[in-house]
Amino acid sequence: MLASRVLNLYKLSSVSLETPIQYVNKIKKCGNIQKIRLCHLITYRCKQTLTPRQNQQVVRDEIKTLPNCNTFTYRTHTCGELRSINIGEKVTLCGWVQYLRLNKFLLLRDSYGITQCIINNDSINLNDIPLETIVKIDGKVQARPTAAINNNMTTGEIEVDIDKLEILNIAENVPFNLRDYQKPKEQLRLQHRYIDLRFPKMQQNLRQRSLMLHNMRRLLVEKHGFVEVETPTLFCQTPGGAREFVVPTHHAGLFYSLVQSPQQFKQMLMAGGCDRYFQIARCYRDESTRPDRQPEFTQLDIEQSFTNLDNILTMVEELLYETVIKELPKPPFMRMTYKDALENYGTDKPNMTYELKIKNVTNLFSESNDCVDLKAFALPYPSKLGKLTAKYKEKLSELKKKYTVRIILNENISKELSTDLSDKIQNIVGDCNSSVIAIGENEQVCLCLGEVRELLRGLLQSKGLIEVKEGIVPLWVVDFPLFVKGENGLETCHHPFTAPHPDDMHLLDSEPLKVRSLAYDIVMNGNEIGGGSVRVHNVNLQEKLLKMLNLDSNKLTHFMNALRSGCPPHAGIALGIDRLMTLTCDADSIRDVIAFPKSHDGKDPLSGAPNVISENDKKYYHINIVK
Amino acid sequence: MLASRVLNLYKLSSVSLETPIQYVNKIKKCGNIQKIRLCHLITYRCKQTLTPRQNQQVVRDEIKTLPNCNTFTYRTHTCGELRSINIGEKVTLCGWVQYLRLNKFLLLRDSYGITQCIINNDSINLNDIPLETIVKIDGKVQARPTAAINNNMTTGEIEVDIDKLEILNIAENVPFNLRDYQKPKEQLRLQHRYIDLRFPKMQQNLRQRSLMLHNMRRLLVEKHGFVEVETPTLFCQTPGGAREFVVPTHHAGLFYSLVQSPQQFKQMLMAGGCDRYFQIARCYRDESTRPDRQPEFTQLDIEQSFTNLDNILTMVEELLYETVIKELPKPPFMRMTYKDALENYGTDKPNMTYELKIKNVTNLFSESNDCVDLKAFALPYPSKLGKLTAKYKEKLSELKKKYTVRIILNENISKELSTDLSDKIQNIVGDCNSSVIAIGENEQVCLCLGEVRELLRGLLQSKGLIEVKEGIVPLWVVDFPLFVKGENGLETCHHPFTAPHPDDMHLLDSEPLKVRSLAYDIVMNGNEIGGGSVRVHNVNLQEKLLKMLNLDSNKLTHFMNALRSGCPPHAGIALGIDRLMTLTCDADSIRDVIAFPKSHDGKDPLSGAPNVISENDKKYYHINIVK
Repeated sequence: MLASRVLNLYKLSSVSLETPIQYVNKIKKCGNIQKIRLCHLITYRCKQTLTPRQNQQVVRDEIKTLPNCNTFTYRTHTCGELRSINIGEKVTLCGWVQYLRLNKFLLLRDSYGITQCIINNDSINLNDIPLETIVKIDGKVQARPTAAINNNMTTGEIEVDIDKLEILNIAENVPFNLRDYQKPKEQLRLQHRYIDLRFPKMQQNLRQRSLMLHNMRRLLVEKHGFVEVETPTLFCQTPGGAREFVVPTHHAGLFYSLVQSPQQFKQMLMAGGCDRYFQIARCYRDESTRPDRQPEFTQLDIEQSFTNLDNILTMVEELLYETVIKELPKPPFMRMTYKDALENYGTDKPNMTYELKIKNVTNLFSESNDCVDLKAFALPYPSKLGKLTAKYKEKLSELKKKYTVRIILNENISKELSTDLSDKIQNIVGDCNSSVIAIGENEQVCLCLGEVRELLRGLLQSKGLIEVKEGIVPLWVVDFPLFVKGENGLETCHHPFTAPHPDDMHLLDSEPLKVRSLAYDIVMNGNEIGGGSVRVHNVNLQEKLLKMLNLDSNKLTHFMNALRSGCPPHAGIALGIDRLMTLTCDADSIRDVIAFPKSHDGKDPLSGAPNVISENDKKYYHINIVK
Repeated sequence: MLASRVLNLYKLSSVSLETPIQYVNKIKKCGNIQKIRLCHLITYRCKQTLTPRQNQQVVRDEIKTLPNCNTFTYRTHTCGELRSINIGEKVTLCGWVQYLRLNKFLLLRDSYGITQCIINNDSINLNDIPLETIVKIDGKVQARPTAAINNNMTTGEIEVDIDKLEILNIAENVPFNLRDYQKPKEQLRLQHRYIDLRFPKMQQNLRQRSLMLHNMRRLLVEKHGFVEVETPTLFCQTPGGAREFVVPTHHAGLFYSLVQSPQQFKQMLMAGGCDRYFQIARCYRDESTRPDRQPEFTQLDIEQSFTNLDNILTMVEELLYETVIKELPKPPFMRMTYKDALENYGTDKPNMTYELKIKNVTNLFSESNDCVDLKAFALPYPSKLGKLTAKYKEKLSELKKKYTVRIILNENISKELSTDLSDKIQNIVGDCNSSVIAIGENEQVCLCLGEVRELLRGLLQSKGLIEVKEGIVPLWVVDFPLFVKGENGLETCHHPFTAPHPDDMHLLDSEPLKVRSLAYDIVMNGNEIGGGSVRVHNVNLQEKLLKMLNLDSNKLTHFMNALRSGCPPHAGIALGIDRLMTLTCDADSIRDVIAFPKSHDGKDPLSGAPNVISENDKKYYHINIVK
């Protein structure tokens, strides 16, 4: 019982595909207390050191605090927890029929594991039971014959001799098998998500998500005194953001908007004295036409009064380090300015799991080049890679067009540039390196080489020519510009409530595009996981910024009044939980860490939503459809 | 430091309006471990027993696990935590200017308390600072002169001598004061919610809500291995429920519906192997025209596979007993059938904090009365109350009309009925009791007397003639009918996925209105706090029920397929968090436990939502407004 509960914990921690020892070795590296405690328990079980009395008592006490998945149910055990210490016990198991053989063996599966059940009883006929039928089995745990022990199966030492088998619900026409090697196409999986969720990997993802969010809450509430406040999702439109869904009401012509984030609310909570706020919040954006976007998504939204940029970054570092079930470096995490990220890695979200760094070689050209506005950058890479194949050359020429830059391949450097330049470049990039050169407008060149960098990484990795770190390599990108040039004047780089960098306030009127902001992004392995900023708390500055952005402050009267009412200085962040979980679970897409995702263009493959609505509903909401 | 952190915990537990000792005495009665631990710490501080070394160490270790509200901020303490043990410390406080006096005293407030600051420094002029301005104060803690010690204030032993005062944000035109005795009207409070939230009571409600939900999560996840799964809110319509908001998409004529509850999803999760699910879920119902309803609300949604009615009730009892910060009786809670509730208390949600029980006196009449369909019930009450005033008589005559029953007041019993009957009734209701009699159709009579019961309770309570229990008296109501008679045939009493009572299956075809269901409601002090049921897991039975209810199963294809795919037997419940918090916080309305509530008819007093939308939006969503 004791040991099986420990293993049960191990199951619960969503690592069912690894052995306990593998798991322990992995998490030991992280060095965080909660994980270490888990790992202590598992090691304990693995070493079978159950004999010394006082040790047993320690573990017994620990185990009392572990979750018990068999309360409030008529099963006595899950299908994943029986071990040799249970031999002789009468048990009741419930689960799905995974496999039947010879009218004698039945593999019973639930989300905790698989148990082999056998029949020595002529009155039970297994042949008529369709796979995936739900059954309840009363039986007795017995040792497997030595030859039948399966060490690859956590329950491989035992089997259950069936006394009674009750069919709880027959499965009809199940469209696919629950075998990993027969995994169906995603569209079919999403259409029958209630079956797809039975795959161990999906169970693992959902359970890991639940655990991680719970640990985040524990850290924020129990250690640091944050308060979770639920804010409305039916609200008014926020000017200057993403497209927001609208919701008609029975008041003709009047609509709610579904919030794109709790931004306004959390700032009003700061004004309201909720100085340490967080919320795991549902957010809505009508960007369903963009790939890998969900119309609704989850973010961990945090805001604090009386704080500054460094404090928020430290808080988030602790939060991620303590709760993400993957190897993370010890805080503080690396920080990089937006400018450095762009010029060294060609993106505002550099993937730092590998080296490959862009080098500015403009000064080599300026001697021989009159056009001072053009910049030249080189991306060095190991020359062992040899010449690029036609496929890659084609991709490069696509990038060339996309960014309107000139790209010079390694083999053409001498030819296209002078030999003299070629030598100088070789000096800069180093002896054992080839390089790709791009020449053009500064930002375009960098962005182009940023894409080339990812392209080459894939190629180099496939040939074992580059070291790519396992685990997660987090990076803060800071010092973003406050504004970017838009089609109709200035646009915000983050959102209109972001504070300008105090060192650049003098440029606000004269050279607004040079003003940096107090915004920050947390980047992991090339993905933007979250972003935030120190906010504007002064109403006059906020009014000025809205005006510069040409946004209507009349739509924000309530918000401006909140700033005016004695609003403390505050800062915060929002972390994208779906993306963070995708990384944490090594999932292919955010859809694999969401129970019921939409597919492309916001369609629900399960129910077919969105749907037509009744004439009655249209009348009630005072709307007509215009085709 | 040690002691102040304990008190800080006490603050955090949202009891700032009571003294620690009052709080301890109150929660000691509950007898639950987590609360007792808190209470141990507080008692400890109160008794000032900090001397014995080993005791100190125990508490020190405990305190390490308490939340610290001063991490990641430039304040050193909150305005609620400084005590005499802090005397001599240099501190930094941030907060709102609550009160200024004589250009010497400044009361500084944050959500944790109030600290008196004084100025012995000519360079600082307090006169120009508007109240509610946000300031940062650096200073030194000093003892108050003995005469100035204020024992009604948790920080009343000390004051902070200001070295430096920095104005962080000036307050302009604050529309009301933060004084409880000048509390503004609700409409003004809601319109300026960012100020209203600063009231200690509002802070207490929000913090208590956060703590209670957190403790619920801890119990479910850590003790019982439940998994929190987030489900979509953009979905298709569910037939047979409340009115659902619709959300237009850029696909002309196609709409999402905002879910009225995660019911379908949680049942599909059961089919998908998530056998212990919960979610603190946002739900939407377009019932904004009904008073005290919010268009969006929060429910704790729970579902379990391989369980039954008794198990779910036991689980919810443990959950509420362990997490609600109010006195609750030890489980098991009372259970009552729907029939008994109706016939003894005249409602399906009886308030059990007081006695007053309806008595069936029909048999007295049947001897002398030919009309066998009429029922007679009496509601006895203490005769000390005397005759009802005209105001109450008027209310009774309204009820008479509402329910089309005959009501006979106590003083008219002999007159309107025979003296003989009057004596018999007196025998039944008891010597010291008066009674109100109602005669009419069974259910109508009961419902009518149910309202009379609440009316009399108010009257009796105001005169001290009835004992009303403090705290919460929970009650399970079970054995609801499966169907009710609707305008167009059978309607569901709970929802269409509720299982019929197994003992009544034989009546399903012949007398469907007599079939009971496996639904249950949890009622507290006359409020329905939650409800749930054992669900139908057999697809054939579900199809039959939908047909009987005349609901279109084509809209539920995905759901029916889930039942068909090997769906385990399951049951669950949903608890209304807003209503539960209203009870727990002794709040007047659910609006007092919601950070940003809507006012009547779904209007947002803060932003003015719902609003008109742009022509551009209408075009994008292919809709026109019909006035």
